[in-house]
Amino acid sequence: MEPSKEVDAPAATSPQPQSKRTRSNNGKGKSIAEDAQPLAPIVSTKATPLQRGGWKKGVAILDFILRLGAIGAAFGAAILMGNNEQVLPFFTQFFQFHAQWDDFPMFRFFVVANAAVAGFLVLSLPFSIVCIVRPLAAGPRLLLLIIDTVMMAFVIAAASAAAAVVYLAHNGSQDANWMAVCQQFTDFCQVTSEAVVVSFVAAVFLSFLIFVSSLALKRGG
Amino acid sequence: MEPSKEVDAPAATSPQPQSKRTRSNNGKGKSIAEDAQPLAPIVSTKATPLQRGGWKKGVAILDFILRLGAIGAAFGAAILMGNNEQVLPFFTQFFQFHAQWDDFPMFRFFVVANAAVAGFLVLSLPFSIVCIVRPLAAGPRLLLLIIDTVMMAFVIAAASAAAAVVYLAHNGSQDANWMAVCQQFTDFCQVTSEAVVVSFVAAVFLSFLIFVSSLALKRGG
Repeated sequence: MEPSKEVDAPAATSPQPQSKRTRSNNGKGKSIAEDAQPLAPIVSTKATPLQRGGWKKGVAILDFILRLGAIGAAFGAAILMGNNEQVLPFFTQFFQFHAQWDDFPMFRFFVVANAAVAGFLVLSLPFSIVCIVRPLAAGPRLLLLIIDTVMMAFVIAAASAAAAVVYLAHNGSQDANWMAVCQQFTDFCQVTSEAVVVSFVAAVFLSFLIFVSSLALKRGG
Repeated sequence: MEPSKEVDAPAATSPQPQSKRTRSNNGKGKSIAEDAQPLAPIVSTKATPLQRGGWKKGVAILDFILRLGAIGAAFGAAILMGNNEQVLPFFTQFFQFHAQWDDFPMFRFFVVANAAVAGFLVLSLPFSIVCIVRPLAAGPRLLLLIIDTVMMAFVIAAASAAAAVVYLAHNGSQDANWMAVCQQFTDFCQVTSEAVVVSFVAAVFLSFLIFVSSLALKRGG
């Protein structure tokens, strides 16, 4: 698909015998830059990146915006869940009258993981800014891709473990004889579900970030 | 880090005035190939990929092996969980005497997700083979990276939802008054835990696959 086009592109424009032209990795942008000034004896190596970085800069800015969205979603999920607490005005035979987010270790993991992911994403913002300033730098881009992959894994693990508990709290389990505690703690379950949804939104942001980063990496460093 | 080195490298070797040398995207390998045959008038565009593809071919073979490992782990997890069933020889007031993997919707999701991931990874094997045959092709590599990211998201979601249920089954929940059903269904819980661990192994394989693919993408197509 794409690669064969890139291989053919320099061959199509090659009848300029004076410049020994080797296959450039992503030839399109570069050959345009060369054709524009064919008689300049030695081109500064700084000029080419500035001309080619146009759409890459756009990708880097998109990366920055998506990253802010992911930070907001992960932080919001952690805050929503971390402040989740409900005290019931009555007491029954089976239930405590007090539900709190740290009743379940999964919810504790949820809060810690989402807060940690938000923190790491904040720490990754400078690298995203480096990618805006130097759109062709492959090193920061690769670092961001790996950070984002690990963060996505944590967010999804936290969100889906919490979602499993939320499901059990809503529906109970006939087979295990677990009761649906959400019938009492309606507000608690409502906020918990919202936090899980917000956390999955963060995961969607992160998956878009990975997609954008890999697309930017593909076109060369 | 890396990018500045790449910018400087062509400048250091540039006092060869006859070849108008532009900044190549990852100049190192290419400049060696050029220096080896400085007098050839027009180099075939096919020759360079064959010389440079050495370590990329190794990466592609590593990708294939890791992919087989991920397929085996995901498929094994699905089979382990899908055949999980235990009938107790007695009947108590609180528990059914029969535990099966589809008692919990999370376990059903676990089996479906792991089997689907194994299937999709089998379908991705041809693209991995294409990457071995043509190590410099960026298109299949990018496709594999995106497939692997989505697959990892599904495997981690399935495994951690099942892990949450396994934890609750082992330890119960005092606050929700859920009993630890694993005190009765020991074998069932044992196999379930194993399946969850195997599924996380598949997730680790997939994260290595993503790492390898992004590293291979970084060096240009």
